[in-house]
Amino acid sequence: MKNLSKTPTHAIDKKYEISQKQLEQILKLCLAVKGISSTTKLMTVMANAIQELLSCSKCIIWLFAPQEDHLWTFSDNKIITANINKCIAGKALEDKMYIHLANPASDELFHDYTDSLKGASTGHLLCFPFYQKDGESGVIQIMNTNVHQISPAVINVINEWSDIAAGFFTTAARTDEFKYAFDSFVDTISHAMDTRDFITAGHSRRVTLYAVELSKQMGLSPIETEILRYAGLLHDIGKIGVPELILLKDKKPSDDEFEIIKRHVGLSKHMLAKVKFPISLRPIIDIAATHHERLDGNGYPHHLKGDEIPRGGKILAVCDVFDALTSRRSYEDREPIRKVINILDEEINESFEPFIVYHFKNISLDRIIQIMEYGHSAYMDDDDIAYLKTFTLNDLVTTDKIRTDDQLKMENTFDKYYSRKYRG
Amino acid sequence: MKNLSKTPTHAIDKKYEISQKQLEQILKLCLAVKGISSTTKLMTVMANAIQELLSCSKCIIWLFAPQEDHLWTFSDNKIITANINKCIAGKALEDKMYIHLANPASDELFHDYTDSLKGASTGHLLCFPFYQKDGESGVIQIMNTNVHQISPAVINVINEWSDIAAGFFTTAARTDEFKYAFDSFVDTISHAMDTRDFITAGHSRRVTLYAVELSKQMGLSPIETEILRYAGLLHDIGKIGVPELILLKDKKPSDDEFEIIKRHVGLSKHMLAKVKFPISLRPIIDIAATHHERLDGNGYPHHLKGDEIPRGGKILAVCDVFDALTSRRSYEDREPIRKVINILDEEINESFEPFIVYHFKNISLDRIIQIMEYGHSAYMDDDDIAYLKTFTLNDLVTTDKIRTDDQLKMENTFDKYYSRKYRG
Repeated sequence: MKNLSKTPTHAIDKKYEISQKQLEQILKLCLAVKGISSTTKLMTVMANAIQELLSCSKCIIWLFAPQEDHLWTFSDNKIITANINKCIAGKALEDKMYIHLANPASDELFHDYTDSLKGASTGHLLCFPFYQKDGESGVIQIMNTNVHQISPAVINVINEWSDIAAGFFTTAARTDEFKYAFDSFVDTISHAMDTRDFITAGHSRRVTLYAVELSKQMGLSPIETEILRYAGLLHDIGKIGVPELILLKDKKPSDDEFEIIKRHVGLSKHMLAKVKFPISLRPIIDIAATHHERLDGNGYPHHLKGDEIPRGGKILAVCDVFDALTSRRSYEDREPIRKVINILDEEINESFEPFIVYHFKNISLDRIIQIMEYGHSAYMDDDDIAYLKTFTLNDLVTTDKIRTDDQLKMENTFDKYYSRKYRG
Repeated sequence: MKNLSKTPTHAIDKKYEISQKQLEQILKLCLAVKGISSTTKLMTVMANAIQELLSCSKCIIWLFAPQEDHLWTFSDNKIITANINKCIAGKALEDKMYIHLANPASDELFHDYTDSLKGASTGHLLCFPFYQKDGESGVIQIMNTNVHQISPAVINVINEWSDIAAGFFTTAARTDEFKYAFDSFVDTISHAMDTRDFITAGHSRRVTLYAVELSKQMGLSPIETEILRYAGLLHDIGKIGVPELILLKDKKPSDDEFEIIKRHVGLSKHMLAKVKFPISLRPIIDIAATHHERLDGNGYPHHLKGDEIPRGGKILAVCDVFDALTSRRSYEDREPIRKVINILDEEINESFEPFIVYHFKNISLDRIIQIMEYGHSAYMDDDDIAYLKTFTLNDLVTTDKIRTDDQLKMENTFDKYYSRKYRG
């Protein structure tokens, strides 16, 4: 183990003892990771670029989580954590020194799970820590086989690169932080609005879950799905301006009251227009504002027709009505599921886009139950989940008049959850 | 003008025609700007580093705003914009070619304001555009005097650097985007909550403005001020759970009703605890949750005493009470200002920290009026603003019983706005 001097405070005066080839490698690393603003993606892309450019068998990048006092990394789509006192990377970070081991498997801190190579034993291991003032710290870990040493040139490159990497992870962390803050605040407010209106408690979240499920069925792009998710959570935010006297009545509103309720759509749009969404998310505003429009122009508030309504608005419209008809504590009882599906079908072309209803009916029954019961009871029998996964809403209405045993079993299993009795 | 080849798609295969010294300069630029996640700061730091490292007289970095179809930069604490069709940088960006001019002042696109050097004429000018797929584009502009050419080596460095710069600006833009989205959503919800409760309309925003003013008086750090700003906007968010029947009564609430109103503090804390604030902003939660505590332990909800209450909570407490006593549409009339200040003084040690009240009374009278009237009327006579700026709240109560003409003038000027009659 040896301590390497880190960058002096004023980088511009720095003198390099590094070859042209090594400088070129650092520049190529820069170009490989530039513009990536998500921490997990940065981890993956940077590790791959280091592997390829420095010809090493494996690279892992660890970040330090000070609140949890552990290291974490992201690999194969999952988070892996490591106790800082119980791994080689943790020791390097704590000692502020790089660790370079031959035959690392003999070290007591060696872990098969994170320090091994596939199909070969780890002959050489380098853990190089990085730090950023008021920012992220972590460790770049490189592993090679027995026949392939980690050269002084590689260590030289990683030494320079580690400082730059700390900067990249710091800016990515800032983006993630405000994205999480924004997301969780949207979720908190959406939930608070839902709770205020006890009749439709959980409505926005369920509409959002249906819309996301539907977007998967329809094969929408990740950004379209993301827009729908926000629009679903926020579509009723204008209800903050509808008096509770009207909002919370436990019978159908009068015509006058309904006119006031209708205003919530305009209020939602007005409020959302004041939020400075990133450009890519701006369609949220128009989607939230059109969830009560109908294909035939008889919706509100603007009597838009057909193509005048954005696709996201049409998707929310189906999810909104489906949830209203199937929620537990509506002023009308939960409708029988066949009747609900028939209402969707009857409203095709008048209210709803046929293509969207078609895909909605293709959502599997396990997802329907899980979403419908969200916040009431998470419990479902594993066998029932597996069984209901093989059927869709459509299967419930296309059964023959004289039902087979299989059809009856499907209906009964669905109904076991659809009709279960309790107060949430 | 000459087109330079840009980075090939697979950066790792790239071959460089660049010297070791130039590579070192690029690396130093990287280290100079690493970890900066605000666009305006990145612009400034990067331009300064280019000036210093490449020894040029001046560097400006322009970013392209596609929505507004213009270039913008940040210099001397202000935003400067330039029509894309009417400047040299704009032409470079549109033509996707760098522009290198000797004697640029003879060019029809030359602008004194952005293309001149202080105390010397611009002998040489380079505008080098950069682009990032799904990200930011812009132009690096370098200016030198007559005696100092822009060498091929400098152009070589800027050519490499421009690609990396595009990445840095793209990640900074993502951070800014979500920070703006978060901030504007907080502001929108805070405003909606204030509006729902017409008695205290505008309350959260005014409390926030007082708290920020107070934090300047007290010399708090930027992050403490930022925390106070969020805590001020969000301190009453729990009122979303207080029924309007109680919230909106136009007389003093009964004891039972007051017990329900008090719950809003716990609800605020509960809601804010669900928001994943960046670590540096987490104190918001406890500050918002303690704005009704009192130094003597007779506050609510937790009867905290003295040092158990965070400083931010003590600051909000003073601002909250001051606003309640001076807001236009309270169930009690706006109190005479001397009486309001006397109430603050009397509550020192019982409710309020002496040091905080001392600083609150040092806020200048022009700021008091501007905040108090926020959302009602922006109009104030310029002479009156300048005059009231020279007095503080404290001056209003330390005048002698027999007033001099000057004292009377101050009181009358203040009262002209404090007592002006209109409906907001």
